[in-house]
Amino acid sequence: MTDTAERGGLAVTEAMAERRAVKAFDPEYQIPDADMRDLLETSLLSPTAFNIQNWRIVRVTEPDMRQRIRAVAWDQPQVTDASDLLVLCADLNAWDRSPERYWVHAPQEVQDLIVPNIRKYYQGRPQVARDEGMRSCGMIAQSIMLLATERGLDTCPMDGFDFEAVADLINLPDDHAVALMVAVGKRAQDPFPKPGQIPYEEVVRENGF
Amino acid sequence: MTDTAERGGLAVTEAMAERRAVKAFDPEYQIPDADMRDLLETSLLSPTAFNIQNWRIVRVTEPDMRQRIRAVAWDQPQVTDASDLLVLCADLNAWDRSPERYWVHAPQEVQDLIVPNIRKYYQGRPQVARDEGMRSCGMIAQSIMLLATERGLDTCPMDGFDFEAVADLINLPDDHAVALMVAVGKRAQDPFPKPGQIPYEEVVRENGF
Repeated sequence: MTDTAERGGLAVTEAMAERRAVKAFDPEYQIPDADMRDLLETSLLSPTAFNIQNWRIVRVTEPDMRQRIRAVAWDQPQVTDASDLLVLCADLNAWDRSPERYWVHAPQEVQDLIVPNIRKYYQGRPQVARDEGMRSCGMIAQSIMLLATERGLDTCPMDGFDFEAVADLINLPDDHAVALMVAVGKRAQDPFPKPGQIPYEEVVRENGF
Repeated sequence: MTDTAERGGLAVTEAMAERRAVKAFDPEYQIPDADMRDLLETSLLSPTAFNIQNWRIVRVTEPDMRQRIRAVAWDQPQVTDASDLLVLCADLNAWDRSPERYWVHAPQEVQDLIVPNIRKYYQGRPQVARDEGMRSCGMIAQSIMLLATERGLDTCPMDGFDFEAVADLINLPDDHAVALMVAVGKRAQDPFPKPGQIPYEEVVRENGF
């Protein structure tokens, strides 16, 4: 632990460097409920377009359901062994669910400007709403993983599973989509070194392709 | 500045609480190039499925191109006034671009297991590749925003713009998709208080819907 961590939290840069996708979790370690709630409450400060808060998080605590999800997730052990398994889903119609409540504390002129534009933006554009859902879930997933790292926990983001089967198991409404799963717990084993980074110049470009 | 910040970095929890979508940036403030490179290099530690690193970041530095993007982005001032404007894009075929290099430093048996599965997973499934691109860009966007907050900078995530027009301006390849833009700089004005959070119980559920 660094001095920073002893003061109550790992810095963002350190958390970025320390976060790794852990596959082997300690099955005995259980995150206290209050700690998980605090972590998730903090993660809800993640941004969403028009503040529509279109993420939904299913925390799977029933051991039997964990086994059934593992059976449709290439039998990956982190599904059952990690303390917590979160299924991150997008509500594809969040923009249409009384959107005025997303802006209720804003000045009236801001509400009048933004709220009508929310429906105009998404109405009749299902791919736009889906892209938005995936982006929002990506942002909150990274928040959850960095917050967990800060607090001495490990995570594994997962999309290697049968999305339809998991949707059925969690009784997902038709107008929602599963985005990814995140396992959270304590590592039992260190992950491999990072397997291969592509060059900075391939990712970051000036002014265009 | 807190003690933690003076030690070189804001803790993750503090950065989550301090990050806000800033609309009014100081047009005189320019982030030094080396600082932006360090921030972006660190952001590349964000996770991607199968480590395919499917994000691409276009840093728009030409003032004329900034003006043209602003014209197709509802004339939002942060597009030109923020020190930096990043267009985050997804490479929808990253999975097919010599994927063995994404795993080159892994043990041979891990490479043999994973690399062939990358193409099997994405081949012929364009919506899966697109969802992945949006998720990956969401994750790296949140990394960029939290790293900026840690370093005393402000950000604004944006998807209020004409995606096709921006794609044309940055000469986006046909097999890429624009995901969102992120403005980075120094605030000229504090943002409004958070406009309205939906209840925790609406977002987080136990075991299903």
